[in-house]
Amino acid sequence: MDADSLKSSKNDVPRLSNIWTPTGGITASQQADEDRGTSLLLQAGFIRQAHSGIWHLLPLGLRVQEKIERLVDKHMQSIGATKLSLSSITSEELWRKTGRFGGQKSEFLRVMDRRESGFLLAPTHEEEITVLAKGTVKSYKDLPLRLYQISRKYRDELRPRAGLLRAKEFLMKDLYTFDASQDAALQTYSAVRGAYNAFFDELGLPYLVAEADSGAMGGNLSHEYQFQAPSGEDTVHVCSSTSCGYTANEEASLVDFPYVGDGPGTCPKCYLQTIEKKRAIEVGHTFYLGTRYSEPLEAIVSGPDSAAEPVKLQMGCHGIGISRLIGAVASLTADARGLHWPQSIAPFQVVVIPKKGLEREALDFARKYPGIDIVVDDRDKPLPWKFKDAELIGYPMQIVVGKSWEKKPGAVELRMRATLEKGGEVMETEEVGSRLAYIPNHVIP
Amino acid sequence: MDADSLKSSKNDVPRLSNIWTPTGGITASQQADEDRGTSLLLQAGFIRQAHSGIWHLLPLGLRVQEKIERLVDKHMQSIGATKLSLSSITSEELWRKTGRFGGQKSEFLRVMDRRESGFLLAPTHEEEITVLAKGTVKSYKDLPLRLYQISRKYRDELRPRAGLLRAKEFLMKDLYTFDASQDAALQTYSAVRGAYNAFFDELGLPYLVAEADSGAMGGNLSHEYQFQAPSGEDTVHVCSSTSCGYTANEEASLVDFPYVGDGPGTCPKCYLQTIEKKRAIEVGHTFYLGTRYSEPLEAIVSGPDSAAEPVKLQMGCHGIGISRLIGAVASLTADARGLHWPQSIAPFQVVVIPKKGLEREALDFARKYPGIDIVVDDRDKPLPWKFKDAELIGYPMQIVVGKSWEKKPGAVELRMRATLEKGGEVMETEEVGSRLAYIPNHVIP
Repeated sequence: MDADSLKSSKNDVPRLSNIWTPTGGITASQQADEDRGTSLLLQAGFIRQAHSGIWHLLPLGLRVQEKIERLVDKHMQSIGATKLSLSSITSEELWRKTGRFGGQKSEFLRVMDRRESGFLLAPTHEEEITVLAKGTVKSYKDLPLRLYQISRKYRDELRPRAGLLRAKEFLMKDLYTFDASQDAALQTYSAVRGAYNAFFDELGLPYLVAEADSGAMGGNLSHEYQFQAPSGEDTVHVCSSTSCGYTANEEASLVDFPYVGDGPGTCPKCYLQTIEKKRAIEVGHTFYLGTRYSEPLEAIVSGPDSAAEPVKLQMGCHGIGISRLIGAVASLTADARGLHWPQSIAPFQVVVIPKKGLEREALDFARKYPGIDIVVDDRDKPLPWKFKDAELIGYPMQIVVGKSWEKKPGAVELRMRATLEKGGEVMETEEVGSRLAYIPNHVIP
Repeated sequence: MDADSLKSSKNDVPRLSNIWTPTGGITASQQADEDRGTSLLLQAGFIRQAHSGIWHLLPLGLRVQEKIERLVDKHMQSIGATKLSLSSITSEELWRKTGRFGGQKSEFLRVMDRRESGFLLAPTHEEEITVLAKGTVKSYKDLPLRLYQISRKYRDELRPRAGLLRAKEFLMKDLYTFDASQDAALQTYSAVRGAYNAFFDELGLPYLVAEADSGAMGGNLSHEYQFQAPSGEDTVHVCSSTSCGYTANEEASLVDFPYVGDGPGTCPKCYLQTIEKKRAIEVGHTFYLGTRYSEPLEAIVSGPDSAAEPVKLQMGCHGIGISRLIGAVASLTADARGLHWPQSIAPFQVVVIPKKGLEREALDFARKYPGIDIVVDDRDKPLPWKFKDAELIGYPMQIVVGKSWEKKPGAVELRMRATLEKGGEVMETEEVGSRLAYIPNHVIP
């Protein structure tokens, strides 16, 4: 075997022998979880539990997370939002001002330091960012302002469950918007909705957009992005008409199910069709906040008319649950063989699997596609083991350098995770190239 | 003015009118800090203080941080380290096992939840990663293993100072290495030293590598990466010979200064030259740990000889202070005009500054260099204000589309932050291209 072409260099194609992917080896008790997605994430080496409701991300899990982050960045930038990074620590004092500090037995995780400073681990950042904006934005001319971050948030969940779906520590994208008038704020709200739709479209899984209760946040316009899933904790009312479009979270729905019993209710929008109840996982949320935070925190700016009253900042806040998305997609796509990632956020889009003795050929083959997110399974394992592992991990595409190559060098078998039962498709290297060219590129540099 | 070429599109060149860079506007009391680097980071809109020892990163600060992260990723990958992401929360119980839980009045920030689970905010992750490795690595064949992460760490500093240089919350890169024998672990240690040298070389600022005391970590081989700076908290002993190379932290030095008074001591290595004391900021640290953690946490694997004793994991841990680097570089490079970033981690490598009325020309000019990390200052401000702002922020290179362009379209003035006193250099667009080609590319996608 040619040692040189087996040796890895910095910019070479990634190979599984170099990436820590501890698949298998999880006992039944360790993976016991009511959610199959979580069991598979454990078994396939994406996550490990550190403590109750607290999770570590292993390399494959982190790759998925980073893919989601880059996708979020792209769509946040499309509406002119700038990224920053707020501290995970906030203070009780600030939350008292907005009336949101619920005392010591609430969902806050409190931080105890030597001075008893009254620090909290922030579950969200409306208070901190309003204070930050207040100290910097002085005039309506500095608006609109759209600021977002992707950071760890904390909530003392009474009952952490289903791995990343309900954890005490979680990664969130939170966008905060500031405008000088209600009209401008509503335009911003609609721009954010557009960016969210584009993000979820590109993610590539079906989703619902439900009218939502804006309760805790204090505004009066709110939408939820939901994945329909039996394991979901939310209930969404959806009109069974294909054209009506009525979709609302049960808590915000106009349909009064108790009144009609638990059978189908009539749609409160079209009055023609019935409403279906669907279990769903919330993965995104948009809120119009108005002056809910700018008023108690006195975030005001000078308006265009110098004689008039100063303007209270009109705000919005908009979240996407990054770590929850990992759990939700796993739960949504899990089948009998394992996980199945959409192209947009797969840990790798293509795995090249060589038969023993064809490792060099597999590496040379993969090197032909430097723009494609490929990994080579060069581990010293039998072919059937590698197939099972690839199915468990859920790469969208497998390329086998095996029997076909032995018959005719350059010929490979292409196997799609979505249609494995159909078996592989034998093709020449050139044809593979034209197939790979259709994959939207989501390489992490 | 042509509205189309002024309009921004998704992949267009970044412009300061779209990025939140609140420069100035900081009062003397807000920026009061003993460290000039920190004052400038505040004034130039890189950071804001949230609470004592707790900082927010604004967009420019986050860009610098992300540049450092990408540079670290590159050099970690060069030694086959895989990236993962451990929880920020750890448990008292685990730290008791290694004897590192110092009680409630120690430097730990403790997390209080409803169940009083004994959670801590982790200042470092030897305990957690040893437990993770223990649950996964079963045989010497799974070694060597090199795992790293970049994450927020916490320490209850009694006296937070100098902004990011000593904060309660800070971003660290921590690499953990696992080997089957002491020999292999020492080889790993030396590979890590090589990667650290390459990282600091590419960063582009002079640094010292000092022999260090391995005290708290419990191993017996340790080096510190230090920036020489009057504001530093460490004292390093350096031999004044150009060839000897003796460099050691005061705490680990063989030079007994008290014995010779505070005057120069003789170098304990070459015995020819005297030792100088230098104040320095520690920005990186490598530790050989041996079995300091694998022994109390019982992280053992099967060895090559099945009859022999199982092998205790031989470990190393290696940190780079990412957020501290931001503060240290600011402190090191600050001059009377402002900050001055090295090319490798500048928030942008080039700022293009148009005179009023030449905004379109400046954008078109910048669009000619899609591979270069350029930002256009298209804000509605007078030219002298923009110059001052660019000097304060510290872009390595300024390109002025102004008087020269008016005389001859295509001609610009090139001003280097390092040699501003020499004034600008007038050149044609083509010549600029060949100058920009020499800049190592550090664009954030």
